[in-house]
Amino acid sequence: MGLTLGELAVRFGCELRGDAAAQVVRVGTLSGAGPGELSFLANPQYRSQLKDTRAAAVVLDAASAPMCPAAALIHSNPYATYARIAAQLHPEPPADTGVAPGAQIDASARIAATASIGAGVVIGPRCSIGERVRIGAGCVLGADVRVGDDCRLHARVTLESGTELGARVHVQSGAVIGSDGFGFARDGAGWTKVPQLGRVRIGDDAEIGANTTIDRGAIDDTVIGSGVKLDNQIQVAHNVRIGEHTVIAACTGISGSTRIGARCMIAGAVGIVGHLDICDDVVVTGMSMISHSISAPGVYSGGIPATPAGLWRRLVGRFKRLDALAARVARLERGSHPSSARTDNDE
Amino acid sequence: MGLTLGELAVRFGCELRGDAAAQVVRVGTLSGAGPGELSFLANPQYRSQLKDTRAAAVVLDAASAPMCPAAALIHSNPYATYARIAAQLHPEPPADTGVAPGAQIDASARIAATASIGAGVVIGPRCSIGERVRIGAGCVLGADVRVGDDCRLHARVTLESGTELGARVHVQSGAVIGSDGFGFARDGAGWTKVPQLGRVRIGDDAEIGANTTIDRGAIDDTVIGSGVKLDNQIQVAHNVRIGEHTVIAACTGISGSTRIGARCMIAGAVGIVGHLDICDDVVVTGMSMISHSISAPGVYSGGIPATPAGLWRRLVGRFKRLDALAARVARLERGSHPSSARTDNDE
Amino acid sequence: MGLTLGELAVRFGCELRGDAAAQVVRVGTLSGAGPGELSFLANPQYRSQLKDTRAAAVVLDAASAPMCPAAALIHSNPYATYARIAAQLHPEPPADTGVAPGAQIDASARIAATASIGAGVVIGPRCSIGERVRIGAGCVLGADVRVGDDCRLHARVTLESGTELGARVHVQSGAVIGSDGFGFARDGAGWTKVPQLGRVRIGDDAEIGANTTIDRGAIDDTVIGSGVKLDNQIQVAHNVRIGEHTVIAACTGISGSTRIGARCMIAGAVGIVGHLDICDDVVVTGMSMISHSISAPGVYSGGIPATPAGLWRRLVGRFKRLDALAARVARLERGSHPSSARTDNDE
Repeated sequence: MGLTLGELAVRFGCELRGDAAAQVVRVGTLSGAGPGELSFLANPQYRSQLKDTRAAAVVLDAASAPMCPAAALIHSNPYATYARIAAQLHPEPPADTGVAPGAQIDASARIAATASIGAGVVIGPRCSIGERVRIGAGCVLGADVRVGDDCRLHARVTLESGTELGARVHVQSGAVIGSDGFGFARDGAGWTKVPQLGRVRIGDDAEIGANTTIDRGAIDDTVIGSGVKLDNQIQVAHNVRIGEHTVIAACTGISGSTRIGARCMIAGAVGIVGHLDICDDVVVTGMSMISHSISAPGVYSGGIPATPAGLWRRLVGRFKRLDALAARVARLERGSHPSSARTDNDE
Repeated sequence: MGLTLGELAVRFGCELRGDAAAQVVRVGTLSGAGPGELSFLANPQYRSQLKDTRAAAVVLDAASAPMCPAAALIHSNPYATYARIAAQLHPEPPADTGVAPGAQIDASARIAATASIGAGVVIGPRCSIGERVRIGAGCVLGADVRVGDDCRLHARVTLESGTELGARVHVQSGAVIGSDGFGFARDGAGWTKVPQLGRVRIGDDAEIGANTTIDRGAIDDTVIGSGVKLDNQIQVAHNVRIGEHTVIAACTGISGSTRIGARCMIAGAVGIVGHLDICDDVVVTGMSMISHSISAPGVYSGGIPATPAGLWRRLVGRFKRLDALAARVARLERGSHPSSARTDNDE
Repeated sequence: MGLTLGELAVRFGCELRGDAAAQVVRVGTLSGAGPGELSFLANPQYRSQLKDTRAAAVVLDAASAPMCPAAALIHSNPYATYARIAAQLHPEPPADTGVAPGAQIDASARIAATASIGAGVVIGPRCSIGERVRIGAGCVLGADVRVGDDCRLHARVTLESGTELGARVHVQSGAVIGSDGFGFARDGAGWTKVPQLGRVRIGDDAEIGANTTIDRGAIDDTVIGSGVKLDNQIQVAHNVRIGEHTVIAACTGISGSTRIGARCMIAGAVGIVGHLDICDDVVVTGMSMISHSISAPGVYSGGIPATPAGLWRRLVGRFKRLDALAARVARLERGSHPSSARTDNDE
């Protein structure tokens, strides 16, 4: 499905420099795109790639436009504009509405007529599936699950009983929502399971990544705000609350009862301990350990970049003798004779 | 299903202060509970929440009881007692016994008559499924799997061939038990797969979290002791052995052939390297790297809490120059002239 | 199925010391093997275990052979040789060819006659499944997926639309290949999804671990080279490229657009940030954070081993005051009076 640059400029509010009648049929990268292909420049750092592009048109901002050898679709937010045009050029293939063979739908579930239920899907009692929802093959929905309009579940997603998704939520394959929280009471030599009675509630426009897990609350619910984007293999423990529009990258784990504010950006492989309060607009860089509440917006870090192993071993050795090093400095400050003061064979 | 406080006191061995005829019908948090609801206070740190509770009754210990404005069910272990009462007030909905439509059961498998096999479940040759077992929709059991009485598999669990579960094991959705261990022999430019011939054996009363993976042994078995509780997204490599009643929080990874003792408590996102021996009663705090065997019970730590990014960058810079700092201290101790000794432009 | 040592020596190019007519029927560990069982010694560090073995025969190298009390199958690469013999002694049980009941195969898919398609498998339009492929129960393949000859998918694997596997690829249970990359454009208060239009292409002889996730590319493809071995719960983000024969251990995460060279060995729980270039033959030790490109082969490290918690707390405290410690050393170098210079109550 080709679209003319003129149509695109009008529909997406761009200024066009170039031939309004020229057509684009698909997207490509700046370096890979050829005739009929549309590319974009979002990060000015890659501006030098512009000059060699053979794309038919490029979405970019006004500052980059003069360097563009191709037709330019100019917008103050080129990345979001590119995203919208790409969705137009590459629409999802339509899904068959109705229930595929082999799906098992409880008689008490309500499925909108415009929904598409894939092969082998299992839907439990009293579920409610909204308009135009697409549920991929092999998904399992427990009892009393509510899926809002225009949600999309990829293959093999589990929504345990009571889970609620707002509208337009995307869940990638393998995600598990509503698993039991990790609650055990010490009981003699062992542990007694504490019933996990809350649910998971997810707002509108959220994205849940592949093989991400979100536990149901112990008593109250685990709550994921509207517009939250969770990458793959994230773990969200029971009773966590995540504020609107917060994005979290892959492999991050959030322990129980922690609250994360709105518009936070949390990088990958971060660990957040339980019962914390993270305020709005916090940015956390990769592999950080967040062990205290954060009450001021800003950027927080905790990962130490790797080095060649020999140097690293020395640094770790130094780190493990920091107590001794500080003691030596203190002795020097007191004017003690260093030779008698040194008790390790450091340096 | 309401229960009177008198019944609860008798059945769960509590001292009751309050109206024995009063009924509770469900549980709630201290701050959220209202009439007819039972709450609990396990951590004395939250004692201040007692005074405002509107719960009908609270399970707590004797020391906290005087501060309780509601009926008090007094027990020396209020959390475990709460867990038992909650299970009584909120029983799991009963499952239909028998085999749901669309399940594929090999003719040689033995399924107890009281078991419940969900839709789309696949059970391989020679499997044995115990009494009152519940297998959720979409689970796949390979050949020769043994599931003990009263086990519960949530939806979409894989038990690969030969896996054995004791009695009362809970497996959350998406867990994979018995996947091949990561064994490859260097072979010219590449790697040859080493057949993974052992199994996974899990004792009684274990819990396996959502999307957790436990690899089969290479030759001998991977063994998870009775009462072990594993949270979500834990990785247990081949030939690991975990002792009884050890609990491990989410996102922790345990490399091959490591043995973990009994009653250990391992926090989230911990990494444990292979071929180690961790003794009984070890506690490991979050995001620690365990790279050596541990032979003394106690608490071990390895994560560094995040700080504001600017400070963190300076600290990492200091860390990477620790060798130079130690050298400067040594020169000072020798009485060398500092100005000639300094070779970096530190500080 | 027993094999004589003579047969094994000939077939696998070993020198035999012992009775060529003796038979072995299965493998065992050095300490556990008994009559009729074959063991191996690959790591000379375990050579002391040789003297007590009751194995019928041991695969080992020439240097270890003199210490072997049993028959010796001598090879310069004993581990790979063991792997091949073990595969011979313990062949996979044959799978039924054809399509199991309950599988849903789109009419336009091409399935080789020698392939085995498990119960409940869903295969989308225009897929192509090669000779002798085994697809375990509950797998879901989207549209236009290509699976090369002799691939094996364990249970409950997702291959999203357009995914390509070369020949002899093994995918463990729960893996998700071709999920959407994590691409969102900031858009007012929230985020707009950037269509993820690339695919995942995997070469020959790769292994993908249980519950590992590999995202499709945003525009170009995510590419996993031939011979790459990925352990469980690895996250590979969109547009990552991994070179041939690289092995990566469990729980490692690789952020978007990073390229990893050939023959790298990356340990578990490593985090690699996006848009990096890691050259060939790089080794990364466990729990390292790789935040910069690496252009020289070698070993890189970044994890700090845990210590008893009391010592660790002091070390973290020292670490967080490294700025102050360096300032004190600088003052000493300048000859300032320490008592006035010290502003913290360190040491």
